[in-house]
Amino acid sequence: MTEKKKTTIVLLSGDYDKAMAAYIIANGAAAYDHEVTIFHTFWGLNALRKDESILVKKGFMEKMFAKMMPRGADKMGLSRMNFAGIGPKLIKNVMKKHNAIPLPQLIEMAQEQDVKLIACTMTMDLLGLQEEELLDNIEYAGVAAYLAEAEDGNVNLFI
Amino acid sequence: MTEKKKTTIVLLSGDYDKAMAAYIIANGAAAYDHEVTIFHTFWGLNALRKDESILVKKGFMEKMFAKMMPRGADKMGLSRMNFAGIGPKLIKNVMKKHNAIPLPQLIEMAQEQDVKLIACTMTMDLLGLQEEELLDNIEYAGVAAYLAEAEDGNVNLFI
Amino acid sequence: MTEKKKTTIVLLSGDYDKAMAAYIIANGAAAYDHEVTIFHTFWGLNALRKDESILVKKGFMEKMFAKMMPRGADKMGLSRMNFAGIGPKLIKNVMKKHNAIPLPQLIEMAQEQDVKLIACTMTMDLLGLQEEELLDNIEYAGVAAYLAEAEDGNVNLFI
Repeated sequence: MTEKKKTTIVLLSGDYDKAMAAYIIANGAAAYDHEVTIFHTFWGLNALRKDESILVKKGFMEKMFAKMMPRGADKMGLSRMNFAGIGPKLIKNVMKKHNAIPLPQLIEMAQEQDVKLIACTMTMDLLGLQEEELLDNIEYAGVAAYLAEAEDGNVNLFI
Repeated sequence: MTEKKKTTIVLLSGDYDKAMAAYIIANGAAAYDHEVTIFHTFWGLNALRKDESILVKKGFMEKMFAKMMPRGADKMGLSRMNFAGIGPKLIKNVMKKHNAIPLPQLIEMAQEQDVKLIACTMTMDLLGLQEEELLDNIEYAGVAAYLAEAEDGNVNLFI
Repeated sequence: MTEKKKTTIVLLSGDYDKAMAAYIIANGAAAYDHEVTIFHTFWGLNALRKDESILVKKGFMEKMFAKMMPRGADKMGLSRMNFAGIGPKLIKNVMKKHNAIPLPQLIEMAQEQDVKLIACTMTMDLLGLQEEELLDNIEYAGVAAYLAEAEDGNVNLFI
């Protein structure tokens, strides 16, 4: 019996382009039959937010963070040429023209391919994000869970 | 027969300092007899652009992107202290003083050491870059080619 | 005899959140008995700066760089929502509320756990940083030392 190869990605970035790269690599690795884990921390958690507003109890600071951070993958900005939010729209138009898959669909595809999506509980706490606000069927864990996967990983990336 | 060690780098960043780090690690690894691959995607493609203007047919959006992105490694900005473009000049002056090798020469050196430079065809499409605009003697491929190298890689980095 | 697992991190970023992620992973890996190395280059060197002003002889450019870069881990900004320096204060308040460990203490903890902290001598040169300005008990080396660790690394990250 041969063991499956493993790919792990820490996604700290909240940029649309970087999250897209993360999910393209993740989907590619899953297609090559790797066991794939994406560990979302800090701004990377925004990729996992539901796009509707969820009613949860929050303190003032948590409310402010929640308001200022993009609600879901589709609302994330670019790391370059963001042009006050126009950049992502341009890129998405070009993507449609070239039949490239937008980020929300890449995330769905990853879930269908059993890519393990983990939300970092420590940074959820810091940014005041609660489980109700994040996508269904994801896992909640800390750095120990990440390291347990990564130490046997063939491809480990920090994005 | 022992197999060669492998180093792979995904270069998504279009920052001079990060590209410099990528190419210093790549050249170092090649000197230690690793098989080295740099997979350029998104803004990292700018490091591979020729510095002259190349006449190719483009749509409006492609023209705009082409115009706004730096033409070649020498024109890239810094991730910090860019100061509206003065930062890179300062750094380059300091580099000259300290005999550090500028990015365009690091790229040449990498090519001489047979570092495999790959341009990501999917993001070339998105940004409207064409083969004529990029350096000679590079390869064109997608995420599958990257993963084929990375899954046997000893050092895999995302920059 | 089994060899220890190895984790290496290149820290190029000068952002508080990214340095925090680097040191949380490093401390976690050390707790799991990995041999851990953090190689600080470019803006990542700022995490190693002492917070007092150190009198050393510098040229004009080095003085300018020294003045503009944050003096030590506690003064670093965020990669997002920095709000002209208010962001880090907010995050630190929230961290205190949630009993999360601030960056300077994470660095101390790493030193106590024998995480090897390396300052990249080439970029120290470029930024005009001298050994007297950096923390005690760190090592000074170049890319070759990094590669020697990374090529046997189980987890190699670039942050």
